Amino acid sequence: MNSFLLQHPIRFSTRTQDLHPSPIREILAVVDRPGMISFAGGLPSLESFPQFNLQAMPQHMLQYGASEGEAELRERIAEDMQSLGLQCSAEQVLILSGSQQGIDLVAKLFIDPGTSVAVEAPTYLAALQVFRFFGARFVAYDAGAPDPDTFKREKPAFAYAIPTFQNPSGRCLDVTERAVLAAACDAANIPLFEDDPYRDLVYDDCERRPVCAQLQHAPWIYQGSFSKSLAPGLRLGYLVASPELIPFLTRLKQAADLHSNRISQWLVLQQLNDSGRTQQLVELAEHYRQRRDAFEAALHRHFSDLASWQTPPGGLFFWLTLNHQVDTRQLLPKAIKAGVAFMPGEPFLPMDVEASGQLRLNFSHADAEQAERGLRILAELVREFV
Amino acid sequence: MNSFLLQHPIRFSTRTQDLHPSPIREILAVVDRPGMISFAGGLPSLESFPQFNLQAMPQHMLQYGASEGEAELRERIAEDMQSLGLQCSAEQVLILSGSQQGIDLVAKLFIDPGTSVAVEAPTYLAALQVFRFFGARFVAYDAGAPDPDTFKREKPAFAYAIPTFQNPSGRCLDVTERAVLAAACDAANIPLFEDDPYRDLVYDDCERRPVCAQLQHAPWIYQGSFSKSLAPGLRLGYLVASPELIPFLTRLKQAADLHSNRISQWLVLQQLNDSGRTQQLVELAEHYRQRRDAFEAALHRHFSDLASWQTPPGGLFFWLTLNHQVDTRQLLPKAIKAGVAFMPGEPFLPMDVEASGQLRLNFSHADAEQAERGLRILAELVREFV
Repeated sequence: MNSFLLQHPIRFSTRTQDLHPSPIREILAVVDRPGMISFAGGLPSLESFPQFNLQAMPQHMLQYGASEGEAELRERIAEDMQSLGLQCSAEQVLILSGSQQGIDLVAKLFIDPGTSVAVEAPTYLAALQVFRFFGARFVAYDAGAPDPDTFKREKPAFAYAIPTFQNPSGRCLDVTERAVLAAACDAANIPLFEDDPYRDLVYDDCERRPVCAQLQHAPWIYQGSFSKSLAPGLRLGYLVASPELIPFLTRLKQAADLHSNRISQWLVLQQLNDSGRTQQLVELAEHYRQRRDAFEAALHRHFSDLASWQTPPGGLFFWLTLNHQVDTRQLLPKAIKAGVAFMPGEPFLPMDVEASGQLRLNFSHADAEQAERGLRILAELVREFV
Repeated sequence: MNSFLLQHPIRFSTRTQDLHPSPIREILAVVDRPGMISFAGGLPSLESFPQFNLQAMPQHMLQYGASEGEAELRERIAEDMQSLGLQCSAEQVLILSGSQQGIDLVAKLFIDPGTSVAVEAPTYLAALQVFRFFGARFVAYDAGAPDPDTFKREKPAFAYAIPTFQNPSGRCLDVTERAVLAAACDAANIPLFEDDPYRDLVYDDCERRPVCAQLQHAPWIYQGSFSKSLAPGLRLGYLVASPELIPFLTRLKQAADLHSNRISQWLVLQQLNDSGRTQQLVELAEHYRQRRDAFEAALHRHFSDLASWQTPPGGLFFWLTLNHQVDTRQLLPKAIKAGVAFMPGEPFLPMDVEASGQLRLNFSHADAEQAERGLRILAELVREFV
């Protein structure tokens, strides 16, 4: 760089100082290496994707469309929401370019530098990244037992929660916990942002009704995804929001990318209206349930003296707490060198910690043989490391 | 709303105060009415869209993909850029969910509340909206003759320009003007954000080489779109940026929606590699040239005593300056009542003006008969109004 440029550096926005490389991206960059066993990502299994075809798609779907999304798809999603107990009209549905986009829109709507946001600890790391990027100050809370005084004192702009098969913990809130969360949001009038990408990946009987359905007057945003139940390459999700929020979210959507991909919207609607859809979801859950069970059997063989965990009743992850509170980020390069990738626990925490001693293991991607081999290698490394 | 809620209002971010309904959205909501003649949007003609087909698409395109976009598509775009004189590698290409997304990413990268941004007057209104939403303070400049002193004094974080078939003015910068713009950015080290969605819609011989290609050391972002040359429903665009900017833009892309739709990326790559592609673009341009010429003939019949305009050598719009400087926003409801939609000029200006006396007319959507009838009605209304 010449002296002229040093005197005239590029002036980025203040928030760009918080724009760090994502740990997920860094890891996903190596998991494609031949022979690598990956417990790192949250990739659905390739065999579960439908065969899509466009032969019946009307050509006008290739024109510009509505920012809100296709009317028929919004109607269909509103019906599905109503069957889950969430009272809403199609006008409250906004189609997203994947549910990651909902996180960006909600952050734009609420977060100024210094705005407090209530988040679980641990929680979805890419949500933490986006909220932090817009300047959020985190208030950690337990979504299953929120402290009403904390809500009233800290007055978070909203509470972010993944009540069903939480990422990364796998926890699913029970009936009582859902009622308590809704009551706490109502009492302090804290908007609830409920993120629900895993609800169709259910393996054990458990409560899955949206917490938003139980709110009496707090504003709410509920979002879902077709990435896990259909295919991530479609980049399609949706949000449903209370009437006072939806006009703002729609304008933010338009400013972000005008509207969502209409080909994907058409393909998803065909799938939702397919008579075989329910059976497909049953088979998908059965496939993942088998992977989970095989994975847990291998965990018992290799990690029973090293870590503790809860069996996740749905979703894609085991969340391991090691018996020794080590920095799992330092374990990662050794594991990758040995041919196994996983997600360290630290980036899932809203506060800076030196060593969480926790790690997230995806069980849907590797087959039983890979799971056995990968966990054996990983357990050996943990033994050497602690 | 009950008294509890009045005491505990929702606290939105400061920027949400600048989140107004878009004039485009409001107008597009009425143009679908039966019998409405629309000169309002920038809709490509439906007959120009290819027949897409997914039969040969590999299933792995349905899995999560890279935030940067598909490697082959990025390679192909880098080659196309090089053939336009823009030296870049595939690593500098980022695939977008439509080029509107590039505007959001660039705004996030550069704009804090109060940050000055150089914009043309008039310019693309949805860019103004996004920049304003992030807190930009506008410095109006003439992209064809930028004042170096203004750049040095105001130190804009970047200069936004649409040098080729500008929206809304239709202007195409000539060789000298492009050189002057590049030199001004270099002299003050102002990053240039060059937006180029219309370059393939060329009807008269004119210079179209990217201004970014002429920069010596100023940072740059060049973006293009497949909405006009293939189909908007695909929601696919791309940006190419100088090496110091691209890592930040890629992280912002990941935070915004993880990655772009892979079905669209695959479909676009097939089209770009199709041997008939060049001929298709020639036919597309010929189709629009005929519409432009028919539209201008009708303009001469009805507006020669009412307004002045330049013949746009490409793109989708005529930009009319009425002989009387009226508020064209007030003309709009009368026109819609009479069955004709257009875009008022005022929202295209970065400064508040009471009455621009200018309006944008799209010529690609209406056929010759509709253009004749719509312009006759509009001219009558203008006569009554002034």
